[in-house]
Amino acid sequence: NIIQTRTRIESDNPTSVLRLPSGSELLNYHTKQLTGRDDPPKMASSTVSFIIIIIITTVLLPSLSSQLSDLFPSNNPPPFLGKHSHPIKQPNHHQQYRYETRYFSQPLDHFSFLDLPRFRQRYLINTEHWVGPSRSGPIFLYCGNEGDIEWFAVNTGFVWDIAPRFGAMILFPEHRYYGDSMPFGSKEEAYRNATTLSYLTAEQALADFAVLITDLKKNLSAEGCPVVLFGGSYGGMLAAWMRLKYPHVAVGALASSAPILQFEDIVPPETFYNIVSNSFKRESSSCFDTIKNSWNALRSEGQKEDGLKQLSKTFHLCRELTSVQGLSDWLDSAYSYLAMVNYPYPSNFLMPLPGHPIREVCKRIDGSPAGSSILERIFNGVSVYYNYTGEVDCFQLDDDPHGMDGWNWQACTEMVMPMSSDQNTSMFPAYDWDYSAFREGCQRDFQVTPRPRWITTEFGGHDIEHVLKSFGSNIIFSNGLLDPWSGGSVLKNISETIIALITKEGAHHIDLRASSTEDPDWLVEQRATEIKLIQGWIYNYSKKMKATFEI
Amino acid sequence: NIIQTRTRIESDNPTSVLRLPSGSELLNYHTKQLTGRDDPPKMASSTVSFIIIIIITTVLLPSLSSQLSDLFPSNNPPPFLGKHSHPIKQPNHHQQYRYETRYFSQPLDHFSFLDLPRFRQRYLINTEHWVGPSRSGPIFLYCGNEGDIEWFAVNTGFVWDIAPRFGAMILFPEHRYYGDSMPFGSKEEAYRNATTLSYLTAEQALADFAVLITDLKKNLSAEGCPVVLFGGSYGGMLAAWMRLKYPHVAVGALASSAPILQFEDIVPPETFYNIVSNSFKRESSSCFDTIKNSWNALRSEGQKEDGLKQLSKTFHLCRELTSVQGLSDWLDSAYSYLAMVNYPYPSNFLMPLPGHPIREVCKRIDGSPAGSSILERIFNGVSVYYNYTGEVDCFQLDDDPHGMDGWNWQACTEMVMPMSSDQNTSMFPAYDWDYSAFREGCQRDFQVTPRPRWITTEFGGHDIEHVLKSFGSNIIFSNGLLDPWSGGSVLKNISETIIALITKEGAHHIDLRASSTEDPDWLVEQRATEIKLIQGWIYNYSKKMKATFEI
Repeated sequence: NIIQTRTRIESDNPTSVLRLPSGSELLNYHTKQLTGRDDPPKMASSTVSFIIIIIITTVLLPSLSSQLSDLFPSNNPPPFLGKHSHPIKQPNHHQQYRYETRYFSQPLDHFSFLDLPRFRQRYLINTEHWVGPSRSGPIFLYCGNEGDIEWFAVNTGFVWDIAPRFGAMILFPEHRYYGDSMPFGSKEEAYRNATTLSYLTAEQALADFAVLITDLKKNLSAEGCPVVLFGGSYGGMLAAWMRLKYPHVAVGALASSAPILQFEDIVPPETFYNIVSNSFKRESSSCFDTIKNSWNALRSEGQKEDGLKQLSKTFHLCRELTSVQGLSDWLDSAYSYLAMVNYPYPSNFLMPLPGHPIREVCKRIDGSPAGSSILERIFNGVSVYYNYTGEVDCFQLDDDPHGMDGWNWQACTEMVMPMSSDQNTSMFPAYDWDYSAFREGCQRDFQVTPRPRWITTEFGGHDIEHVLKSFGSNIIFSNGLLDPWSGGSVLKNISETIIALITKEGAHHIDLRASSTEDPDWLVEQRATEIKLIQGWIYNYSKKMKATFEI
Repeated sequence: NIIQTRTRIESDNPTSVLRLPSGSELLNYHTKQLTGRDDPPKMASSTVSFIIIIIITTVLLPSLSSQLSDLFPSNNPPPFLGKHSHPIKQPNHHQQYRYETRYFSQPLDHFSFLDLPRFRQRYLINTEHWVGPSRSGPIFLYCGNEGDIEWFAVNTGFVWDIAPRFGAMILFPEHRYYGDSMPFGSKEEAYRNATTLSYLTAEQALADFAVLITDLKKNLSAEGCPVVLFGGSYGGMLAAWMRLKYPHVAVGALASSAPILQFEDIVPPETFYNIVSNSFKRESSSCFDTIKNSWNALRSEGQKEDGLKQLSKTFHLCRELTSVQGLSDWLDSAYSYLAMVNYPYPSNFLMPLPGHPIREVCKRIDGSPAGSSILERIFNGVSVYYNYTGEVDCFQLDDDPHGMDGWNWQACTEMVMPMSSDQNTSMFPAYDWDYSAFREGCQRDFQVTPRPRWITTEFGGHDIEHVLKSFGSNIIFSNGLLDPWSGGSVLKNISETIIALITKEGAHHIDLRASSTEDPDWLVEQRATEIKLIQGWIYNYSKKMKATFEI
């Protein structure tokens, strides 16, 4: 079911409107946050006097059924991947990132010669620190993922922070079918149906990057300038795959929180929810138990006469529930998000949150007044996520299927990530991954049949430690172990140059964000290691090139 | 212009009919040879009492103009790649190769989700020596190139020769749009127009191989069995690229005579014709000079009254020439072929030929009776190629544009290989590569616009020695330096495991052919080295796998 949450904060006195969902087929969660200061980076100074924040994030969560299958019947659980990973523009920081917006004409299909209309790919470029071709100035390329590239640009502070010391150009090419890079001239046309959407694939996106950077380098006579790839979440997957598939295009890749192994049977499908659950358990086992027991409580309550009315009241919903499904999805999403952004310091990644937000949630669940019901405790807990600022009067659950959302399409075609919820180790309702049901949902919603084994055929994944042990080089897989996506990523060094950087207390690609005075030591160290490794790639590249010139 | 030559030999008393071409737009040369013994390998013994040989080979040669541009105006010179590399079935040897023919359902487009009809990919399989999954029996996969896979199967004796000692399965998957692997149900439909042909690309073919082998291994529970790739000419390019793009699918590749660098500006466009020319020059500089001077002689003769009649007589053509173009193309082709099959022992690769055939050609050119004209000498020379058996009474130059030939399409889309002829170092008419004219020809003939920089963007090539120095492993680039395609291949070791094996006296992928008692020592040694390297790949793979099991 789709849950859409919009938080809108205007000027200093924000008004929050949270719409809570009712049931539908896909489990989506949208949070959109468009940061104010609508001034494009190149536009005049800071005369804008208001701030608008809209949080727009989309998450796909599997439907959790089984013992609760009467309440949780969704049979189309597209695996969830970091729509929420569109980091929001911070209202007060980083508005200083300056870039030029350009467009590049791309073939719609790189791998056939059908006579198709080309499309305009947007890319952001900053050359102010670039030392140019004569000094082999590096090019930092962020692999745009499933969203507006400007969101990623202003939320990938790490690249902006380190570019000057590398004398690097910064490039943020947008992923096709997102933001302003729409085939067929508009989102309406591009998302019209399965035919128009059919070229929304990772391979095509990688080829876009390859063609763009090759052309750009040629035009700048910068063929000798090394390209370094960056990416987080799905963007991190793209960065790693791009280094593997296009070693002639880029010298290395920093793939942050990139779950390239979350496919087929490579990692157990329970991984994601186990990690979420453990994040709660490690704070408090009674908290974990309360959540685990809440699903039955929810079901019982919903079955009572006036039960939905009572639930709507308990959870401060603006409109009365028509089923329990929407509410349970809303809770699911909160827990999964919390695990992803379980940062050790206050953040505003998806929602304004305290440091160690899960600790805070559990404090409220465990510390609710004596005599509180399970569901009252749950409400107190998730309020940390949905209403930490205390400004929300009632929560609104939207029913917006958004069937034509880009990531939904990708999940229903290539990005098939099996997800289960183990009845013992997970605090979520038990659910066994059901591919047939998933496929039927995709056929119904998109008139497309997934290819669940294609990603591992095209990009590998099985036995990755053997395959890449003596093949490939210069990839960093960085992961925070608190991030539920870390379980689907590479957590062990594969070779001397294919490295796993893990942080025990890190969550979803925090290393890509701008440095701040609040950064804990381990994060400062992690970034320092990444910088050192990148320097090594560039150094080795230069050495090889010089060796040739000397010959 | 297209030259089609068909040699048809029936039973022990073959009748040869050679049709010589008249002018047309593409420079093709077709030689088809279908070997007799129509008995499928699994069918009963050797009771068939007749032999039919039809030579079918297609070669695209650039049009050579300049000083002779009045005579050689073709402005659509698709670079030539080993259509001739369809090794013909040897009439009396190797009929013992046994295989089963199977079909596999493939998506027409691996990289989009258009709702397209699937097609049946043919593959040949032999498992009689395979030691199976329990003993991690290797799988030898020949990357089918531009022709009927049965031709390649029976002419890649090396794979059959060595499979038993490796306990290996043998697989020969066919390249889409060739042989019996036709999308849309038939060659007529598949080759109907640019739309139906649009999925004839190398990337799709590689994905076909990857999907097929992945599925096959899964069905056989053979996921732990290492795949070794083989390929010659364009098939060698596919093998090398497949190892680079699908390291998780195959542990290594033997890429024989694979000109993966014959693109864009990586090697000088004069390379191919310079090597051909040098092969003649090293035998005899007067031979070289005679050929170099013959083009003017040809032109002068053609301009005379009755000149075409006289030329037709001199060259023993069955029908009178209508222009000089067809004749010059016929000569061009012979020289290029001769260089490719300039083997040190008698062979029957394209035509029945003596060992060192260029030496023989030059002997005849230089040793023609005193007073012979240049053109008479030329005729005596090329007769070695077109009529070594002496059975041809007259030569017939067919005018068959074959615009829908598969390789022509590939040359007009991705496989854009610039070709020039240097006026000093080449014995061919001088010609400067003219991309615009080439593109116009493709637009005219196929209604398609080439992407001349796509191959290097997708597969690399520039600075390959740096790019692959610390990336990738387990590729053998084998080349014979007499082969004019060797100039576009990898001739130096790139790393400890990306190896160049060159033989001074070798020609076009001779190492892939069956061993015979006539093999010179260097060829025996070359193959021994290849076997050793392949053993190393498999050994290292097993070691890594074992190491895991022990953990």
